[in-house]
Amino acid sequence: MSNILSDTDLGILFRDARTHSEWLDKDVSPILLEAIYDLVKMGPTSFNCNPLRILYLTTRESRERLRPMLSRGNADKTMVAPVTAILAWDTQFYELLPKLFPHSDVRANFEGKAEHCETTGFRNSSLQGAYFIIAARAVGLDCGPMSGFDNEKVDAEFFPDGRLKSNFLCNLGYGDASKLRPRSPRLDFDEACQIL
Amino acid sequence: MSNILSDTDLGILFRDARTHSEWLDKDVSPILLEAIYDLVKMGPTSFNCNPLRILYLTTRESRERLRPMLSRGNADKTMVAPVTAILAWDTQFYELLPKLFPHSDVRANFEGKAEHCETTGFRNSSLQGAYFIIAARAVGLDCGPMSGFDNEKVDAEFFPDGRLKSNFLCNLGYGDASKLRPRSPRLDFDEACQIL
Repeated sequence: MSNILSDTDLGILFRDARTHSEWLDKDVSPILLEAIYDLVKMGPTSFNCNPLRILYLTTRESRERLRPMLSRGNADKTMVAPVTAILAWDTQFYELLPKLFPHSDVRANFEGKAEHCETTGFRNSSLQGAYFIIAARAVGLDCGPMSGFDNEKVDAEFFPDGRLKSNFLCNLGYGDASKLRPRSPRLDFDEACQIL
Repeated sequence: MSNILSDTDLGILFRDARTHSEWLDKDVSPILLEAIYDLVKMGPTSFNCNPLRILYLTTRESRERLRPMLSRGNADKTMVAPVTAILAWDTQFYELLPKLFPHSDVRANFEGKAEHCETTGFRNSSLQGAYFIIAARAVGLDCGPMSGFDNEKVDAEFFPDGRLKSNFLCNLGYGDASKLRPRSPRLDFDEACQIL
């Protein structure tokens, strides 16, 4: 594959994209929620395990159920967001491996290995959560990802059978760029990377 | 932001991109290793904490140091890859927050809270690892991400002072598409997502 993305596209995905807390009064089409997932699911995961599960809260009522679990800074901005996604993972993801990884049966890598399952599920649902952010931006949306909330209470409220665990939340909509603060600094290449 | 990416670009990033294990005989320009990071660093992280650290292994000698820690299926393909990136995270990432999150001093959220630091560092370095995969594809490279290796031994060999912890590895190069297997299935929207 020799194609590369244009500067405009890299701006949409990375350079110009910002985390938003305030939103324009513009609905998010349900078609986009499917379009995001149709991209996310193609991203790589270990053994193609795809542990991410997404619960889209598209109504004020559904988001009000979330309010008591949110940190103070996250509550109000979430209530007024057009959509909030709970990005969670299936703690029994390995049961689906015969379907997702049909080349060989790799369930024995996971069954009865709680710590390895936790690490794999958390890592790969986080990867997929990042694909989610990029995919949402790719279809024209802005994101407001958040990890400031009580995971256990969210799980008890939204996933009462105990199989799914929340990873992080992400508000979706069309951000009000006029409300953004200046961008925060990043680490330079030499501060974060080394070449051997 | 109202722009959306073209189908061609979504193919490069998600739909047509594949995990590669065999590589064309074509070097990866060092400029691309910087270009990837310049995109990765712009992706969102909690409190802009940016815990990811990247060690690029660009020589056969440096990759041979990695061989004993790799699972059988990952060893040979890594030795012949043009570049292998060790995607790691800084366990003391919060010490940099006064620089990265200058709005207020949030170090107290992390200092002395080992489990919260571990969760935050692992989640956010995983997010950044996914940005890394997408960014590499965006600049025309193919990826071979891997988590089948002995993290503790890799850390002892490459990060002996104990501050950095490996998350996952990613081979980089120009993949030999003729060696790919058919694509594995994914979960449908209704299997992975729900709308409330």
